[in-house]
Amino acid sequence: MAVFDVAIVGGGPAGLSAALTARVHNKSVVLFEAAGFGDKLRRASKINNIPGIMTISGIDFMENLLEQTLSYEPVIVKERVQSVFIGEPFTLMTADNVFQAKSVILATGVAMSKTVPGERALLGRGVSYCASCDGHFFEDKDIAVYINTLAYQQDVELLASLAKNMNLYIGGALQLPREWLDTLPASVVVHKKAIVQSVEGEKTVTAIHTNEGMKIVDGVFFLRDTYPPENLVEGVILDGNSVAVNRHMETNFKGLFAAGDVVGTPLQVAKAVGEGQMAAFSAVAYAAGY
Amino acid sequence: MAVFDVAIVGGGPAGLSAALTARVHNKSVVLFEAAGFGDKLRRASKINNIPGIMTISGIDFMENLLEQTLSYEPVIVKERVQSVFIGEPFTLMTADNVFQAKSVILATGVAMSKTVPGERALLGRGVSYCASCDGHFFEDKDIAVYINTLAYQQDVELLASLAKNMNLYIGGALQLPREWLDTLPASVVVHKKAIVQSVEGEKTVTAIHTNEGMKIVDGVFFLRDTYPPENLVEGVILDGNSVAVNRHMETNFKGLFAAGDVVGTPLQVAKAVGEGQMAAFSAVAYAAGY
Repeated sequence: MAVFDVAIVGGGPAGLSAALTARVHNKSVVLFEAAGFGDKLRRASKINNIPGIMTISGIDFMENLLEQTLSYEPVIVKERVQSVFIGEPFTLMTADNVFQAKSVILATGVAMSKTVPGERALLGRGVSYCASCDGHFFEDKDIAVYINTLAYQQDVELLASLAKNMNLYIGGALQLPREWLDTLPASVVVHKKAIVQSVEGEKTVTAIHTNEGMKIVDGVFFLRDTYPPENLVEGVILDGNSVAVNRHMETNFKGLFAAGDVVGTPLQVAKAVGEGQMAAFSAVAYAAGY
Repeated sequence: MAVFDVAIVGGGPAGLSAALTARVHNKSVVLFEAAGFGDKLRRASKINNIPGIMTISGIDFMENLLEQTLSYEPVIVKERVQSVFIGEPFTLMTADNVFQAKSVILATGVAMSKTVPGERALLGRGVSYCASCDGHFFEDKDIAVYINTLAYQQDVELLASLAKNMNLYIGGALQLPREWLDTLPASVVVHKKAIVQSVEGEKTVTAIHTNEGMKIVDGVFFLRDTYPPENLVEGVILDGNSVAVNRHMETNFKGLFAAGDVVGTPLQVAKAVGEGQMAAFSAVAYAAGY
């Protein structure tokens, strides 16, 4: 069986950035992407905060990145990796096939635990997962924000500073400091132990339904934690829900790297792309000294 | 004095990325750039390996990034930061002005220049980095001037007009226009492809040693394109020549962050941009909890 220099799990911004970088270094690369490349990002109709690109749609960004990466001819496998086994080489298993690689980069993105009805259909059309990406589209508008992790307090502050009115739904298990809640402006109505039931809208979001009833809103932000990736790689050390890495994107296993949303916030394109590049440099160096 | 939320030292890819990101978060930002924005990158005629941008010239990339960043209206100060003093708030000094900020991001580019023996010990006692600050102390005295960037030609002119005798050492890679060199007074002796080896002195500077021998001087001006970072921020911990940071771009001082080439290899645009974004998120969080 051919042993690839670098295997990359996931074809979003971080994964493609890593593939491009490793191919520029003439390493053999296999990249696994079972869904669309950068599915989540593709729903963003307008991105203004990728430094160096004034304004671009998520689809255009991903298509440009994909075309650029494919021009360097990595091997693309459109299957989902089920398990990565640590070893020299690493073994990666999909439902139907087995692959081997000297190094592995996890770029699986944020995996959603469960979505509510309407959420996926209206993603990018009023539903957002990223306050700093999309918050300014809701300036002086009415929004709902669901939060279930302390990690997003600043995003709540940002949204509170922008929105006209905001209903803040706090997930059941989350305890937000009272002093902090008291600092939020009067335009914010706090709902504790909230359960979001669905998002309503035809072309765009028009309302949110919760255990407390319905609210008319222009947008809904879901600020959720991620689900643990140790299902993919047994024994990988996490930091919260994210894969723990150092600045060179090294995990606790030699030769195993991670980049992008899977290593944690901020969930930003440029951060993911930069980390993918850094992970590729680390993986290329590891594979070279193999 | 107004205290900025975030001060950014350097306007290359990392610095502008940080400024853009912090402004998107509605934080007050001051960015210092004394030369052209991204001078080094502007010399790249063709860049193929920025993920998401198929092919672009260095000039076009920097102009796009600059225009995009300026549209969010950070305060731009076209002066060189001489010193950053740790504190709450931080204090940043240029030759003529003093600024304060809750957080600081160093994005000064490659720390190419190491200090030479004697340089740090005699800084402020004959060694200077600032012609307009200290030039008048050396009126009718003998000085040496080391220059490795076109940005300081005017400083050389100023020093030449003040000093009795001046030895001008031109760093190896720098090409200064012959017509310009011919305009310098007869009191200036030009040494091309010079290597400064050390500065000598007990209480104050007495001599400079180069690959061409020793000269008795009263002062030595180092006009470099980048400062050794430990001279910009006393006590900042380095990793080799680079500023040591963790994955959140935190240095050893709380509230002080660094991003881009100054934190080390790979010297890549996407890595610098991603790090600038990460540093901005860290700085915004620090400034918010101030």
